[in-house]
Amino acid sequence: MSKKQSQVNALADRFILTANGGSSSLKCALFQISPPLTRARSCTVDRIGLPDGTLTLTDAIMGTSERRPIQAAHHNDCVDPVIAWLEEKITITDLVAIGHRVVHGGPRYSEPQVVSPEIMGELRRMSPYDPEHLPAEIALIEAFGRRYPTLPQVACFDTAFHRDMPRVARLFPIPRRYEAAGVQRYGFHGLSYAYLIEELRRIAPREAEGRVILAHLGNGASMAAVRGGRSMDTSMSFTPTAGLPMSTRSGDLDPGLVSYLSRTEGMTAEQFHTMVNTESGLLGVSETSSDIRDLLAREGSDVRAAEALALFCYQAKKQIGAYAAALGGLDTLVFSGGIGENAAVVRARICEGLDFLGLTIDEARNNAGKAGISTVGSRATVRVIHTDEEREIAQSVLRVLNAV
Amino acid sequence: MSKKQSQVNALADRFILTANGGSSSLKCALFQISPPLTRARSCTVDRIGLPDGTLTLTDAIMGTSERRPIQAAHHNDCVDPVIAWLEEKITITDLVAIGHRVVHGGPRYSEPQVVSPEIMGELRRMSPYDPEHLPAEIALIEAFGRRYPTLPQVACFDTAFHRDMPRVARLFPIPRRYEAAGVQRYGFHGLSYAYLIEELRRIAPREAEGRVILAHLGNGASMAAVRGGRSMDTSMSFTPTAGLPMSTRSGDLDPGLVSYLSRTEGMTAEQFHTMVNTESGLLGVSETSSDIRDLLAREGSDVRAAEALALFCYQAKKQIGAYAAALGGLDTLVFSGGIGENAAVVRARICEGLDFLGLTIDEARNNAGKAGISTVGSRATVRVIHTDEEREIAQSVLRVLNAV
Repeated sequence: MSKKQSQVNALADRFILTANGGSSSLKCALFQISPPLTRARSCTVDRIGLPDGTLTLTDAIMGTSERRPIQAAHHNDCVDPVIAWLEEKITITDLVAIGHRVVHGGPRYSEPQVVSPEIMGELRRMSPYDPEHLPAEIALIEAFGRRYPTLPQVACFDTAFHRDMPRVARLFPIPRRYEAAGVQRYGFHGLSYAYLIEELRRIAPREAEGRVILAHLGNGASMAAVRGGRSMDTSMSFTPTAGLPMSTRSGDLDPGLVSYLSRTEGMTAEQFHTMVNTESGLLGVSETSSDIRDLLAREGSDVRAAEALALFCYQAKKQIGAYAAALGGLDTLVFSGGIGENAAVVRARICEGLDFLGLTIDEARNNAGKAGISTVGSRATVRVIHTDEEREIAQSVLRVLNAV
Repeated sequence: MSKKQSQVNALADRFILTANGGSSSLKCALFQISPPLTRARSCTVDRIGLPDGTLTLTDAIMGTSERRPIQAAHHNDCVDPVIAWLEEKITITDLVAIGHRVVHGGPRYSEPQVVSPEIMGELRRMSPYDPEHLPAEIALIEAFGRRYPTLPQVACFDTAFHRDMPRVARLFPIPRRYEAAGVQRYGFHGLSYAYLIEELRRIAPREAEGRVILAHLGNGASMAAVRGGRSMDTSMSFTPTAGLPMSTRSGDLDPGLVSYLSRTEGMTAEQFHTMVNTESGLLGVSETSSDIRDLLAREGSDVRAAEALALFCYQAKKQIGAYAAALGGLDTLVFSGGIGENAAVVRARICEGLDFLGLTIDEARNNAGKAGISTVGSRATVRVIHTDEEREIAQSVLRVLNAV
C-alpha cells in the first residue's frame, strides 16, 4: 500500500469541518473524508448582528433540516452553538481539521496554509485590506483554536484562484509605489471559481480548457475570465467592493465622487466605506431591498426595483463583453451563486443581445432550470452549475493534510 | 430671401472666437462664418501654471505658425495675450460671439446657452462637480465679459451629446438620494463625439446610423457607445476622472481603496482627488511620463513604461467589448484624439484579438495612417477621424445665433 493510500484510508471514517464566514452569516459543514468526500451535515447561522438571527441544522444524508432562532451579535457568538452541534453529532477525536474560508490572502498567501502564530499575525496585519470580513474570520479561527488547541486549522484563501493572473490584470492605474504596499487586483470568490472549473472539467473537459467566463452572482457578485483553467482577470479587485454592482455594494465607481461628497457633504472615508459596502448596489437603487427576489416581485409596480434590476443585468452584460474581449472570444459562460443558479429571468436578461458572441439562450431550458441553457445552435455554451465553496475548502484541507 | 438666409449672409464676413480650456491649456480659434464656416486662425497657450508656458499662433489659411514663451499662472492670465492677438487680426466689431467649451452642464444644461448672470450662478454652484475644469472656464468667461461687455458669449457643454442616454447608463449604484443632488453619469468629450458623428454621417451615412463605438483617446480618454447617432453609454461619468486609465487620471477604481488609504496613510479626500487626477494613469504606472510617445520610445528598456502602455491598451480593449455587448454587436469603431489619431501601434494593440467582433485591422493601412484601417473582409469598419472640438463649438454658436 502506498504512503498516500494508507493516509487516505486512515482518514476514511473521519471528518473535516469547514467554516465559511460571510459578512452576516456563518456556514459550517461536516464532511466525511471517506472517499468519496461526502457532506454529512451542515450548520448555518444567518443574520448575524441582527435581532432575528436563525440557526439552521441540516442532515445532508437524511435530507432533513431544522431551524431555530439565535442571538448572535458577532461571528464568535456562533462558535458555542456550532461546537455544541458538532460534539453532539460526532466523536470529536474523529475530527481531523477545520478548514476556513479566508477572504484575503494578500500578496503572501495563495496555497492553503495550516494556521500558525505567524499566519495569524499576517492576517491581522492584512485586516485593513478587507475590514468587512477579515476581523470576523480571525476571531473564528481564534475561538476554535481556544476550544481545540491541538486540532489543525487550515486557512483557504478566496484570492488563491487568481494568483497567476497576468500582470496587466493585476495592475492598478495609480502611483506604482502602492503596489509595493500590496495594492493590486487580488480577486475573490476563488474557492467558488476553483470548484466550478473542477466541475466543468468533469462534465465538459474540453470546454474547461477553452475561453470561459464564470459568473458567481450572489449577494456578492463577480465574474472571472478563465482560459485553459487559469484566471486571466476578475471583476472584484483589491477588495470585494469592486466590479459589478451587488446586493449592497456599489462595485467600481467614478473616483471623482470621493472629493465631491467630501466637499458637499463633509463625507469621511469611513462614511464612504459604509455607503459603498452596505447602502449601495441593489439596495441603494431600489431603496427597498437588497434581495433580487424582492425586486423581481416588485418590478411591475415600483420603478426603483425595476431600475435596480436593469442596472444589475446591464453591468453584468457589459462585463461579459469585456471579458470576451480579454479572452479573444467566448466558448463557455457559467452562471452560479444564489442569483446565477436560481433567477432564470436574470440570466435571460443578462444574455439578451449577446448573439454576436455566438451565445443564444434556450428560453424553455433556462426557465426549466436545466444545467445547459444555450440553444443547440449556440456556438458558445451556457451552463448553470451549483457551486460548493465548502466542498472546495474540505478538498483543500485534505490536500494539505496529505501533503504534510 | 428667407429669414435664415438673410441672417447667414449678414454674418458672412464676420467671425466667431472659440475658447477651449483644458486643465493646463487654452485653445482659441477664430472662425470666419463665411459659409462654409472656416477656421482662419488659432492661438494656443500650453503648460499653463508651469514655468515654461508657450503661446502658439497659427494662420490656418496661410499654413504658418509662430511660437513664443509665455508666463501664465492661470487661465485668465491668457486673456490679455489672446485679446491682443485677436484685436491685431480682426476689426473687433466683426466678432459676433465667443463660444466656450464648458466641461459640465450638470442636470440643467444640455443645449448651448447664451451666457447670462443666471447661467454663471449655476456654473458656480456646479463647480464641485468638476473642480479641475469649471473654475478656470468660469474665470475665462468673466474675463472676456469684462473686455467685451456687449458681445454674446455662448456656453457649449461637453456633457450635451450624452443628455439622452438611457436611464440604465446614467444610474449610479449608490443610494438613490444622490441622484436628486445631481450625481449621475453625464459623460464628457461630447463636443468631440458630436463632431465625429457628423463627420461619420458625411463620409459613411449608413454606418452613422448603426452600432458605433467612438474612442476619443487623448490626455483625457473616453469611449462612447452610439446607436442611430445617439449616445447609449460612455466611460467618463459624473466627473472626467472616471472610465479608462488616462495620462494622469486613474479611471474607474475599486471604491474599497478609499478607506484603505485613509486607514493606512491617513489620506484625505483632497489628497485622494489629487492622486487620481494628477498622479495616476500612464504617469502613475510608468513613474516617468504621462505622454504615450515617451512611453512608446522607452517600452523596450523600461518595464514600467511597457506596463503602462499594456494597461492602457488592455482597458481600452475591454471597454470596446463591453460596449459591443451594450449595443448588441459592432458596425464601426472610430479612433480619435491625440493618441487615437496618431499612435498606430496603440490602435493595433487595442484591436488585437477582437476578430470575434468581426473586426480586423489592416496592418499596412493602419501604419500608413489611412482614414479606414480595417481589412476589406472585416465585418466591422475601423476608422481614424481627426476631431475638431473648436469647429463643433463654432457651429453650435452659429445655431444659437440663428435661433435667437
